[in-house]
Amino acid sequence: MLPMGVLTAVLTPLRDDLSIDHAGFAEHCHWLLANGCDGVAPMGTTGEANSFGVDERTEALERLLAAGIPKDRIVIGTGCSAIPDTIALTRHALAHGVADTLMLPPFYYKNVSDDGVYATFERVIQGVGDARLRIYLYHFPQMSGVPITHRLIERLRKNYPDTVVGMKDSSGDWDNMKSACERFPGLRVYAGTEKVLLAVLRAGGAGCISATTNLTCRLAGELYAKWKTPAADALQEKLTLVRNVLEKYPRIPVLKQLAADRVARPAWRLPRPPLEALSTADAKQVAAELARLGIDY
Amino acid sequence: MLPMGVLTAVLTPLRDDLSIDHAGFAEHCHWLLANGCDGVAPMGTTGEANSFGVDERTEALERLLAAGIPKDRIVIGTGCSAIPDTIALTRHALAHGVADTLMLPPFYYKNVSDDGVYATFERVIQGVGDARLRIYLYHFPQMSGVPITHRLIERLRKNYPDTVVGMKDSSGDWDNMKSACERFPGLRVYAGTEKVLLAVLRAGGAGCISATTNLTCRLAGELYAKWKTPAADALQEKLTLVRNVLEKYPRIPVLKQLAADRVARPAWRLPRPPLEALSTADAKQVAAELARLGIDY
Repeated sequence: MLPMGVLTAVLTPLRDDLSIDHAGFAEHCHWLLANGCDGVAPMGTTGEANSFGVDERTEALERLLAAGIPKDRIVIGTGCSAIPDTIALTRHALAHGVADTLMLPPFYYKNVSDDGVYATFERVIQGVGDARLRIYLYHFPQMSGVPITHRLIERLRKNYPDTVVGMKDSSGDWDNMKSACERFPGLRVYAGTEKVLLAVLRAGGAGCISATTNLTCRLAGELYAKWKTPAADALQEKLTLVRNVLEKYPRIPVLKQLAADRVARPAWRLPRPPLEALSTADAKQVAAELARLGIDY
Repeated sequence: MLPMGVLTAVLTPLRDDLSIDHAGFAEHCHWLLANGCDGVAPMGTTGEANSFGVDERTEALERLLAAGIPKDRIVIGTGCSAIPDTIALTRHALAHGVADTLMLPPFYYKNVSDDGVYATFERVIQGVGDARLRIYLYHFPQMSGVPITHRLIERLRKNYPDTVVGMKDSSGDWDNMKSACERFPGLRVYAGTEKVLLAVLRAGGAGCISATTNLTCRLAGELYAKWKTPAADALQEKLTLVRNVLEKYPRIPVLKQLAADRVARPAWRLPRPPLEALSTADAKQVAAELARLGIDY
């Protein structure tokens, strides 16, 4: 079972030709797990999942496992626009012993109904046909265009309680996360940002699955370790200050830049189009802003 | 070279198990081409392209060609979220002699820059590496979340004038279509709706690539045949009246229902989730509304 606490929506490091740097990917995951992360979420939005083909995605998972990333500390993104792709990726993960999947709804059509999204998840669950499967619903309406409503969660939980076990809420809407914690006891609610890590834990949530913990994993891990202690609020405040700086820049580019700087591998700064690498000016500015904060993250 | 005139964004008929009804798909394309359509655009938004995996899409094209749909009357949708998928589908089409492709920009990330979208098309063009390739840019910001701006078209036309040869404008924004016709002489501008077929032809555009001509191909074809005659305005008016009725209903479901009714094959009414079949009440109502119009389309 996927751990609670701090999970990172892992960046996918690339080579100069924009193919996946598999060795670097595994190194980065190992580094995260050794530095405060309880788990890793490869092939999410931050991991540019939808910029890779099915074969690239299955190979990436296989290479991570071969490099020793523990199966039970991975929640793998498998939700695609086309149901057959979602089923193929999910079956592949299960065949390799990874049962925890972070699942986007199909994201091409907009204004689709809850019934239509429900039917999608039902077809995926039945198409995968494996009782081991555990789905974390991925609610990110600003990007996917398709919300995971509470009405939808209720119906899925009622009919597939052992399969639909959690959600990642990247809406940024605290009320939505809080009410999910209250309304669905037993559902593991991960916030999409560590800015509300303490709040979501206090509300009964499971933790966070965050992009920015690619950088701030140590500080986030410390907060999770101490969230029931008097030190918690001050740690949350620091974490929020760092995130506030990062939020001024294009999300994936700034994190790729900072990861590239950390390991001194320039290619890591490259995302796949349509995303663009951070500008040199922004790279300098964010480094200066973070230094000025004087926070050890 | 793809014809000008009336092109239909073809529905993809399914079987009860939601697999593609290849024979029915070819029959429907033949029927369209025999009833007023100058060309067909399979695997667009209306064709639920993004609900099918790469293998399903390549098989669908092969089956259409094997069933005798002429290569030079097809513009095939190949634009995916992931560049390798777009390249694979485009190379496949070219390998089968279909050079005209309708290309969505990558549609997962939102608020991406023109430079990022330009870089995507450039990587696709270079990755395909075939001088025969002809791209029709697919502008449908309401669905894709990623506009094809005129600034982007200008840059692509400048650097790839023989490859980037046209666009489908599904924005519904007449000013955008009109100014594309004026600003880019030689670019083939197809309106995404036959409501402005006459207007776009008068503005120097190429015609339309429309969903609703799955139903109204005969009337649309008549308008295209007579657009320079005094009969044109009255024909446009009729066409618009029919489209106005159809626009009250969910687009793909209503068209699949009416296609299913035409050939008396109930399975044809089924879309893939997250889309849903038209309700029985709506099916009755649209049939009644269309009958009341008294227009022979």
